[in-house]
Amino acid sequence: MRFTFTCHATDGHARTGVLSTPRGDIRTPAFMPVGTAATVKAMSIDQVKSTGADILLGNTYHLMLRPGGERLARLGGLHHFMGWDKPILTDSGGFQVWSLAGLRKMTEAGVEFRSHIDGSRHMLTPERSIELQADLIGSDIIMQLDECTTFGSSHEEALVSLELSARWGERSKVAFGGTRATQALFGIVQGSVFPDLRKRSADALKSIGFDGYAIGGLAVGEGHQLMCQTLDVTVPELPMDRPRYLMGVGKPIDLVEAVHRGVDMFDCVLPTRAGRHGQAWTWDGPINIRNARFAEDPDPIDPTSTCPASSRPSKAYLHHLFKAEEILGQTLLSWHNLGFYQDLMAAMRAAIAKGQFQDLRARLRQRWGFAPLD
Amino acid sequence: MRFTFTCHATDGHARTGVLSTPRGDIRTPAFMPVGTAATVKAMSIDQVKSTGADILLGNTYHLMLRPGGERLARLGGLHHFMGWDKPILTDSGGFQVWSLAGLRKMTEAGVEFRSHIDGSRHMLTPERSIELQADLIGSDIIMQLDECTTFGSSHEEALVSLELSARWGERSKVAFGGTRATQALFGIVQGSVFPDLRKRSADALKSIGFDGYAIGGLAVGEGHQLMCQTLDVTVPELPMDRPRYLMGVGKPIDLVEAVHRGVDMFDCVLPTRAGRHGQAWTWDGPINIRNARFAEDPDPIDPTSTCPASSRPSKAYLHHLFKAEEILGQTLLSWHNLGFYQDLMAAMRAAIAKGQFQDLRARLRQRWGFAPLD
Repeated sequence: MRFTFTCHATDGHARTGVLSTPRGDIRTPAFMPVGTAATVKAMSIDQVKSTGADILLGNTYHLMLRPGGERLARLGGLHHFMGWDKPILTDSGGFQVWSLAGLRKMTEAGVEFRSHIDGSRHMLTPERSIELQADLIGSDIIMQLDECTTFGSSHEEALVSLELSARWGERSKVAFGGTRATQALFGIVQGSVFPDLRKRSADALKSIGFDGYAIGGLAVGEGHQLMCQTLDVTVPELPMDRPRYLMGVGKPIDLVEAVHRGVDMFDCVLPTRAGRHGQAWTWDGPINIRNARFAEDPDPIDPTSTCPASSRPSKAYLHHLFKAEEILGQTLLSWHNLGFYQDLMAAMRAAIAKGQFQDLRARLRQRWGFAPLD
Repeated sequence: MRFTFTCHATDGHARTGVLSTPRGDIRTPAFMPVGTAATVKAMSIDQVKSTGADILLGNTYHLMLRPGGERLARLGGLHHFMGWDKPILTDSGGFQVWSLAGLRKMTEAGVEFRSHIDGSRHMLTPERSIELQADLIGSDIIMQLDECTTFGSSHEEALVSLELSARWGERSKVAFGGTRATQALFGIVQGSVFPDLRKRSADALKSIGFDGYAIGGLAVGEGHQLMCQTLDVTVPELPMDRPRYLMGVGKPIDLVEAVHRGVDMFDCVLPTRAGRHGQAWTWDGPINIRNARFAEDPDPIDPTSTCPASSRPSKAYLHHLFKAEEILGQTLLSWHNLGFYQDLMAAMRAAIAKGQFQDLRARLRQRWGFAPLD
């Protein structure tokens, strides 16, 4: 495998390093903007690049339905299609299919589901997911198909679910094979909020052997505290020498606390989704730009930022764009939020390298209104 | 006045030159993208700049209602507000108020109307329009308030209307005064499709004296042929040494034929509006990117263009973005169309300078499916 993960510095459990891939280096801890349907919503690819993102996430479920896996392959794969030449990680499609309550049926073989677009029937198996991601989409980091265990499941249900995911992980590994020199395969640890099940799931995946390990089934309703507690017991079960990816997380405080616990990679729709709805994250916490107090605020969100969306337009202008329902408002706040997330990751990487991560963490917790650390 | 209009070359009635303003040169013939509500819809200001536009148009009606003229002035004026430091031309607000059928009342004093946003009452007079444009918005080129004569009006109705516009022109000139060293005032010729009334309107405006002369009341339903015929009789009535601006026009063929008749400036929402709806103009005519034949078209719209939106994404990608209703599709096609319009103006300027405008005109008419020239 031409993927190497090098840890440059640690500070407690927090660590910073580089995941090297044939398409470029990913500085960790890393935040991956989500490009659901071959576009980071409301942003041009140059705007995304300008935020400093090293890697994007693509959604296999959306891409397999539109434009379709085989069509995407004929068009040269996702990188060429959307004009992004750096690494791409794709999810397996499992999470989004799992979210189609009433439209899908889980079996040992895989998931049968109906398209939310046209009602057509599809079957997603571990093998088909690998084919879609690795061969048709042409992703760099491929995720195994798994079942996201519903929050609130019993211990017994969570056990049955994680064992299905482990068997799908094994089939994914077989389908992926050992011959892919330029692509990596990640397994996904499930087990809900039960420490013994998280260990059991991690052990099963480690015995299969993956290039990286994701933590799934969090940020699905359990809340910040329980997420942190689950990370406390899960991360130590993962190999030190492989990247750790917390899927679908999260708010800035979630990123800080997960990095504190040793997580290396993140993805989330929050910065772009919130941006499209008028919410901007800042070093002083979130603001809603629609608020009347910004109607005549002549200052940009962050004059010190290198992101043009943060440092140039006044809050009054952004407020106006949202009031007038102009698309540019959605673009600028998505851009600002992605820039902020990348700046936050860069600040954490720098703090870890200097052994000052706990200072940064304490300062951010205080600024964002969270309880001081013990 | 620090505005100078220099004609560098003519080719028949067509002419190319530069309108110099304190905020920069406008190469003519010029196309002005429309930034209705302090934004060119769906585009960032850097994307607009990249198309080569020398000047933008702002809509006084929209700006006076939101964010409001006085608020805009407190925020530093429109240029600062939207981050555009080149020239801006504003319309008077008259056309959009005129379009509010049922919500407005014309009197000698001006137009009383209700806001389409909140129903609030407003009064737009020639004097208030000058104050809004020149003092509050801070526009570079200011248009007199006029009444757009409805297409289909009788000769008598058109005469009454143009005389009202002429009186408003005189009041606008008085309100504008002679002391504005950095701003220009344009009059607007009306007279519907009646040659004698167009002459009468032009004579009235010339005797008042303006820095430039606009032709209003066209592209309101009369069609391409009648528009051309009206230009044939109107343009010769305008001063040679002042810029001529055809308001609200138009399709590419309209621009070519109007330049042929001696027009120097244009504005139109068409490239951005059509772009948001999936239509792209090309040197071979318009295409609708939603058409199924583009679903697997691997080529960009125009690989030879300097506009990134024209030369980079494949038509298949643009097709996908429109099918998936992604905002980026609207951005990219608006950008492409504005780039195409600027390229068309540049091609016309170059052809006039070389004495080859008739060749270009004949070639474009043929490519776009219009009857050959006599």
